[in-house]
Amino acid sequence: MVVFMKNTASDEEIETVITNLNAYGFDVHRSSGVSQTVLGAIGVQPGFDHRIIRGLNGVADVQRVTEPYKLASRVGRDTPSIIDVEGVKIGGQKITVMAGFQGIEGRKRMESVASNISSSGASFLRGNTLKQRTSFYEFQGLEKDELKLMREISDQFDLKLVMEVDAAELVGMISNYASILVVGARNMQNFELLRELGGVNRTVLLERGFAATVEEWIMAAEYIMRSGNTHVILCERGIRTFESATRFTLDLSAVSVAKTKSHLPVFVDPSQATGIRNHVTPLARAAIAAGADGVIVDVHDDSPNASESGVQTLDFYQFSDLITQIKKVAIAVGRI
Amino acid sequence: MVVFMKNTASDEEIETVITNLNAYGFDVHRSSGVSQTVLGAIGVQPGFDHRIIRGLNGVADVQRVTEPYKLASRVGRDTPSIIDVEGVKIGGQKITVMAGFQGIEGRKRMESVASNISSSGASFLRGNTLKQRTSFYEFQGLEKDELKLMREISDQFDLKLVMEVDAAELVGMISNYASILVVGARNMQNFELLRELGGVNRTVLLERGFAATVEEWIMAAEYIMRSGNTHVILCERGIRTFESATRFTLDLSAVSVAKTKSHLPVFVDPSQATGIRNHVTPLARAAIAAGADGVIVDVHDDSPNASESGVQTLDFYQFSDLITQIKKVAIAVGRI
Amino acid sequence: MVVFMKNTASDEEIETVITNLNAYGFDVHRSSGVSQTVLGAIGVQPGFDHRIIRGLNGVADVQRVTEPYKLASRVGRDTPSIIDVEGVKIGGQKITVMAGFQGIEGRKRMESVASNISSSGASFLRGNTLKQRTSFYEFQGLEKDELKLMREISDQFDLKLVMEVDAAELVGMISNYASILVVGARNMQNFELLRELGGVNRTVLLERGFAATVEEWIMAAEYIMRSGNTHVILCERGIRTFESATRFTLDLSAVSVAKTKSHLPVFVDPSQATGIRNHVTPLARAAIAAGADGVIVDVHDDSPNASESGVQTLDFYQFSDLITQIKKVAIAVGRI
Amino acid sequence: MVVFMKNTASDEEIETVITNLNAYGFDVHRSSGVSQTVLGAIGVQPGFDHRIIRGLNGVADVQRVTEPYKLASRVGRDTPSIIDVEGVKIGGQKITVMAGFQGIEGRKRMESVASNISSSGASFLRGNTLKQRTSFYEFQGLEKDELKLMREISDQFDLKLVMEVDAAELVGMISNYASILVVGARNMQNFELLRELGGVNRTVLLERGFAATVEEWIMAAEYIMRSGNTHVILCERGIRTFESATRFTLDLSAVSVAKTKSHLPVFVDPSQATGIRNHVTPLARAAIAAGADGVIVDVHDDSPNASESGVQTLDFYQFSDLITQIKKVAIAVGRI
Repeated sequence: MVVFMKNTASDEEIETVITNLNAYGFDVHRSSGVSQTVLGAIGVQPGFDHRIIRGLNGVADVQRVTEPYKLASRVGRDTPSIIDVEGVKIGGQKITVMAGFQGIEGRKRMESVASNISSSGASFLRGNTLKQRTSFYEFQGLEKDELKLMREISDQFDLKLVMEVDAAELVGMISNYASILVVGARNMQNFELLRELGGVNRTVLLERGFAATVEEWIMAAEYIMRSGNTHVILCERGIRTFESATRFTLDLSAVSVAKTKSHLPVFVDPSQATGIRNHVTPLARAAIAAGADGVIVDVHDDSPNASESGVQTLDFYQFSDLITQIKKVAIAVGRI
Repeated sequence: MVVFMKNTASDEEIETVITNLNAYGFDVHRSSGVSQTVLGAIGVQPGFDHRIIRGLNGVADVQRVTEPYKLASRVGRDTPSIIDVEGVKIGGQKITVMAGFQGIEGRKRMESVASNISSSGASFLRGNTLKQRTSFYEFQGLEKDELKLMREISDQFDLKLVMEVDAAELVGMISNYASILVVGARNMQNFELLRELGGVNRTVLLERGFAATVEEWIMAAEYIMRSGNTHVILCERGIRTFESATRFTLDLSAVSVAKTKSHLPVFVDPSQATGIRNHVTPLARAAIAAGADGVIVDVHDDSPNASESGVQTLDFYQFSDLITQIKKVAIAVGRI
Repeated sequence: MVVFMKNTASDEEIETVITNLNAYGFDVHRSSGVSQTVLGAIGVQPGFDHRIIRGLNGVADVQRVTEPYKLASRVGRDTPSIIDVEGVKIGGQKITVMAGFQGIEGRKRMESVASNISSSGASFLRGNTLKQRTSFYEFQGLEKDELKLMREISDQFDLKLVMEVDAAELVGMISNYASILVVGARNMQNFELLRELGGVNRTVLLERGFAATVEEWIMAAEYIMRSGNTHVILCERGIRTFESATRFTLDLSAVSVAKTKSHLPVFVDPSQATGIRNHVTPLARAAIAAGADGVIVDVHDDSPNASESGVQTLDFYQFSDLITQIKKVAIAVGRI
Repeated sequence: MVVFMKNTASDEEIETVITNLNAYGFDVHRSSGVSQTVLGAIGVQPGFDHRIIRGLNGVADVQRVTEPYKLASRVGRDTPSIIDVEGVKIGGQKITVMAGFQGIEGRKRMESVASNISSSGASFLRGNTLKQRTSFYEFQGLEKDELKLMREISDQFDLKLVMEVDAAELVGMISNYASILVVGARNMQNFELLRELGGVNRTVLLERGFAATVEEWIMAAEYIMRSGNTHVILCERGIRTFESATRFTLDLSAVSVAKTKSHLPVFVDPSQATGIRNHVTPLARAAIAAGADGVIVDVHDDSPNASESGVQTLDFYQFSDLITQIKKVAIAVGRI
């Protein structure tokens, strides 16, 4: 941490800042020039709130130097993490595909989707029965007891089940059925939920909030890890910008940044990000080329009539083609 | 709702869209030109998800015409709402000031703050004992039993207590002490929490998410109202943009827009928005001039040493001056 | 400037950085801790590009401490500037109103507008005959010889003429007629234009680019000043964000920030920012309350039929009311 | 164009709108429901400013249906354009690499860079001698007569010269030396410059403004094309968002969108976008995977000591590796 004193700071003010820093366990190195004094606070105090210093008299600015996370950090690790989800490895050399739908309409349809994505090469089925809608009036998902059905169908087609969980109180129940629990973008900083997820023996796929910085996203992962669960996958799914040609702006730089800063696997959801079917496959390819460990996309058996988010779902042919294409890109970037 | 068909849409596709719209209860008016057909769907179906139509073959785009909220809407109401919080009226002609701190350090300090803001003219005390921090390592607030202390001090100085609640499970407990429950920006779309707040007999102050549109913000209010609690105050506290001179970008246009679209009272929090002490008072004045019904600001008895968010807290003199200044502006815009 | 070395930086790399800093005229203070070395470079070298240092081996980050502008800076000045535009003072205690239209349709209309805004209390007439449109196909303004007409009408009603200039080659011609030359948001970093404006004896009103930070905006002013013309007014007119309820997001924090950082007068254009008539007056009031030295708004004699930007223009009654209202707010904040 | 009338619109107001639309050459289809009337204006009037209608009494909103550009549009074209730059084809199956530096320091260095990038497989040399800096004080590029040197070196190593032009008055001179003229992001809407570029026989590489929508970007291309020059390449180089981990946020969705909306070739500049060396190659790969026709990157012979933008320049080894990698991705997506 570096503390920039104001040009007008008195010696007494500078001394007070140094005393405070020492009290918090930092070594302090003082650089005084003609117009300004700069204090270097050496040491790592993860629990330290630098605003305590910023609020002292005579302080112009405080800059944090070290990153505020540790368990999720890439520093000090030779290789990125590989997470084992009931026998399926995520991360490392391997590219993983998860697919599913946003709403569901009965066993037959679900079987059709599961059967097709499984034979195309996906290893995870995403089913969002409990997804909340922005508006109270928009239609709600299925009842909770349908989780059982989802799990049966997943097992039938040798897929692992991936389910969103949007409330701490549901974590236990959904954990009984799903292999991966998804934290949706809106809940990235729902700390009650994150804490609860820290206590379960399930992998968490943590979507980036659509206004969250990469640092905040990794911090949310750190929060889960610190609460006891280190099996966390990061998932970029678009941020909010002024551009309206796509639903969100997919930030593929964030994939490269997250892979540099953290050892956790990074996924990309091009369906939610773009909201438009035609752009899903090009951006899935781009995600893999940028270094992502996998993608998660929306698929439906009757895409134009899909009950929700219809515009962004792929039909079976399109999905099969997506898998073929990203496999080629994976090989081109030295993965499988 | 207006449906724009693609130039290439076949008659059959157009008919399918019309049939679907009729099935959902819309009257349809068809406009066919040389290059394109446009369908006007007349009627209001609040629960309707327009993506169902957007996903149909031949559809180029769907535009919603009516707003997706009703209880929070200004349409059909002669005047904005006035909310009575245990005898104190919010909205209408009156400007209200809420003040408090982000962390707390013992009864004496709290009494000092409460005493001073009360004598300066504030009617609400904000105390955030349970506030969650972005990082797991940053320091946590007080224990839950300190709520009682907060309430005692509020009563002592004739202030109503305003507390943030960040988890559905805490709503009941905090309701026992606080007169206003605050939904922080990060929880604006925590639907579990919003639902729970729909069931209590307390006023809710709903902060705008820092990446939420005004429409989504009003929708979140609608969600609480639809769940049974119509006592909702909107609170603008800055959105995320590329500008880094202030912590967030305070969107005062949103105050004017929200007052036009909704009958609910609108507050502004210039402390959280700017994160810088010097800008709090100018922007509090601007908020009132833009039509806000009140402001909520951070105050501390020893501002530079405040335990958190020190850079944005006002000392007692500054706070007293803020009240004097916004009162003058209030009168200038025909309020008191 | 502070240079953060990487944890892995060798002594040789650190020495190279110090040597470079010395060569550029900086005194260097070195702080070495257990895990990291920080170098404080003391001195002010306005022409120095800190990326030279950031690119050296072993450097983790470089932070600028002092602001990159001098002539526009508030530092070292007791009071903000007052600019005299042919006898009319801008800045200081006084609030100034500029008004006009985006397109024009003949002498009679223009006289009607000029007559009305003059009698309502405006002292500047804005006429944008040469305004470029985003699309090639949108309609162009009047011919150049109409500048003469604009000037005649301004003189007739005792108004100063304010004209946008969007190309360096037009600066000379427009200077012959207008008292204030406007740099539109799109041209805020058109350095050829800024340089040219540095050479004329006219006040420049510099709109903030809609993706420009406050610092870049002040830097553009610095560029004009450094080129020889210190008569510059800053004008905030909205930035681009994800919010679409208004055309741009008016950033009134930027007014407070700019007044703190720079001694130049700051104006606000609520018409361009919001793009919606109903929000113009509330935000004009808020601008004055936030500390702006004046506003510039769109007015038309037949507002709903105005040839361009109709939705945001005020009619004469609305404009007269705006003046009345902002005068009250001006008095409330100690101005006239 | 579709016109939504207010619920309160009178028959007379509706008739006035219809009369106006007819006068501008539109066929009008009227849909009246219980609560609202919607008017469909059928026809294409490229020069029409829809704000004329939006400003009429009783109008709630106006939605444009057709895109505002024609020459740049993909509609009605079977295949994307291929642009021939003095014998080198851009677009189609082929991936093209442009490389260079931001500043220059003498013939020897320039030869070294040119020699290396040529042997690695680049076909274009970018040299920005005249680049303007944000701050007046930052260092300026070379003198104009060095253009001649740049051209000699390009010829010597069989490279085409790519030069930025930032002022209309320089277009003629730079056209004498460069094969491609670059419009920098800051000048994307410098219409004087765009018009001038419409009159030269050189290919233009048009960078997207960092706050420009994809539509505005294509419109700027349309402006050049309409002015007489159809040889335009689009170049995505990052937009401004709240994320600060990278200098800008590279918007690769925009590549997919632009390829869908326009027939023009689309390039990506990952160096300017990320500002960080380590992310350049991953994002160059991603750009090609997303469908870009080429990339443009910063290279230097002594990267850490490069005079400007050092942090983002690749050294020769890194550049050679980038070419190897994007070629593999190109083949994976069916290109060469």
